[in-house]
Amino acid sequence: MNYRKDLEKMPSYDGTEKNYQIKVNANESTLNLPPLVEERVLNRLGYVAFNRYPNEEYDLLVGQIAKNFSVKKSQILLGGGSSEIIEKVFHAFGGDGKKIVYPVPSFSMYKIYAKAAEAQAFPFNLDEKFDLNVDEFIKKVNEVGADLAVVCNPNNPTGNALTVAQVEEIAKNINCAFLLDEAYVEFYGHSAFSLIQKYPNLIVARTFSKAYGMAGARVGYMLAAEDVTRMINKTFMPYHMNTLSLAAADIVYQMRDEFVPRIQMTVAERQRMFEQLKTLPGVEVFPSQTNFILIRYEKATALNEYLESLDIGVRYFSPSAVELKNCLRISMGTRMENDEVFAAIKNFVNGK
Amino acid sequence: MNYRKDLEKMPSYDGTEKNYQIKVNANESTLNLPPLVEERVLNRLGYVAFNRYPNEEYDLLVGQIAKNFSVKKSQILLGGGSSEIIEKVFHAFGGDGKKIVYPVPSFSMYKIYAKAAEAQAFPFNLDEKFDLNVDEFIKKVNEVGADLAVVCNPNNPTGNALTVAQVEEIAKNINCAFLLDEAYVEFYGHSAFSLIQKYPNLIVARTFSKAYGMAGARVGYMLAAEDVTRMINKTFMPYHMNTLSLAAADIVYQMRDEFVPRIQMTVAERQRMFEQLKTLPGVEVFPSQTNFILIRYEKATALNEYLESLDIGVRYFSPSAVELKNCLRISMGTRMENDEVFAAIKNFVNGK
Repeated sequence: MNYRKDLEKMPSYDGTEKNYQIKVNANESTLNLPPLVEERVLNRLGYVAFNRYPNEEYDLLVGQIAKNFSVKKSQILLGGGSSEIIEKVFHAFGGDGKKIVYPVPSFSMYKIYAKAAEAQAFPFNLDEKFDLNVDEFIKKVNEVGADLAVVCNPNNPTGNALTVAQVEEIAKNINCAFLLDEAYVEFYGHSAFSLIQKYPNLIVARTFSKAYGMAGARVGYMLAAEDVTRMINKTFMPYHMNTLSLAAADIVYQMRDEFVPRIQMTVAERQRMFEQLKTLPGVEVFPSQTNFILIRYEKATALNEYLESLDIGVRYFSPSAVELKNCLRISMGTRMENDEVFAAIKNFVNGK
Repeated sequence: MNYRKDLEKMPSYDGTEKNYQIKVNANESTLNLPPLVEERVLNRLGYVAFNRYPNEEYDLLVGQIAKNFSVKKSQILLGGGSSEIIEKVFHAFGGDGKKIVYPVPSFSMYKIYAKAAEAQAFPFNLDEKFDLNVDEFIKKVNEVGADLAVVCNPNNPTGNALTVAQVEEIAKNINCAFLLDEAYVEFYGHSAFSLIQKYPNLIVARTFSKAYGMAGARVGYMLAAEDVTRMINKTFMPYHMNTLSLAAADIVYQMRDEFVPRIQMTVAERQRMFEQLKTLPGVEVFPSQTNFILIRYEKATALNEYLESLDIGVRYFSPSAVELKNCLRISMGTRMENDEVFAAIKNFVNGK
């Protein structure tokens, strides 16, 4: 069997995740849909033509998003989470000899997407505070002659963010395609989406998975210049989106104001947890503009095991990710969940 | 902007389909889910954790399918319709210098998937009756040194089928990967799936889109040897399936006996329509083992326009598909829909 070159070297995934009593490992919304939204989503699903290929549902959601951002419908594409958007953008600018620059540590899948796209990967190291040096980043992108530059803003898993002015600085000073992954931007509040009108190289990826609590439905979207969406669209096969997720996302987007209190709650909890975690000796806490907090702690491996023993799942980074050595990422849960997580960490740190 | 080589040459798709009063153009099930099934699907969706990344839902459905086919769970992969399965199999055996042999006329996407996989396409012509000459096919696959051979059985859009013995003949006599696309096999009744235990090069693709009336949900699956699924799985990114579709398909598969009467009705309607269409002068009707019938008629373009004017949508083939010149493909509707379609065709043929 003659498989594609280097396919053997790609990692394999199974589709399942471990369950925890308190699951704060995947930056999901800790709450299911607001009850009123869920009721309307389920009602809408009762009208879905399961038997028909996806039809106007794609177009309806694109129409809503375009209206909200005051852009043309042809400037929007939908994907299976922003993950699929990113995968396809990498593919579109990938291939033999193509170069992709992305920050490290950042979304761990960039490396995999670059490999899947058969492109050459150029990781760019964040500084010791996990900040991205904008000038150095621009320099690197231009020096290597990148075909695609990627920034996650706010950054996962570090939580920090560039200002919109800094994003513009990058867009202005590089010539290649520039993918801005705004998966967590609703918790930050400063999207750079409007820059797509000024910088035809800018592609903004957004998702329903985080602030809108729809990780299970796999819906994301991208905003870009018309020429760019036309080309990226070629990487999507027909009917790549399903009617159920599209119909559900359409209702969620109509009712997106219902999510504002939750976003505010998450931001408030993040601040509260940040202040609390900072009081723990030996725990370095990184400021966050997202729905999670990264901490660095010498005994991170043991702490993670302790939390697991309490059925608390946080994100532990494989020892192979050297730049995240001794780091744990904690998604925000409800106030009660956060209190439990904090109490457990405190117990461990205090050696109780 | 330096796009991937040849991306500009890929066709673009929009996500929308035209609606018709009688829509028999896409080989969909004409009926939505059986009411009892739909009720249970909607009930199940009420328990979905929209906010969590897909979790055990993938595994549950794989478990059911594996049990039904008496194979290991590791021999099954799920995809977004069999479309995505086919796309990924093409990708896995594609790349620079790789060769893919597929029949023509057949599923029109094979050509596109081969292009997307950056493989060299070797179309193999069916004979004048649209039959696949098994010996010639084997010869071609071996002569070109193919990396992947593809057969759609029963074949879309021609409707005819190879016997399982013929499929085995191919599997036995070629050395490369062999993708058997069984999207319509439930209307035929003779799957070759059990051959995967004997021929490690055989990959069988199946779908929920046709007989199970789930085209909108985008769920398909493949069966193959463990080594093969392990490799194909590398082409899928994490969370490529969504919880809503997985949960819905899980219920549908549990209740698949509810679909048997519909499949029988479709088969009976196909036979009835076949006999009726054969009575029309100048209309060549191809025998079908699927949920559609292909006809050839000199004035196919005008007939299609006439049907469109009556808000009846059949599948008209672009004049660029020379091998389907003057052909129309008609999916089976309900008995009443079929009667209307037949009456319209009869009127046109009789010049009324």
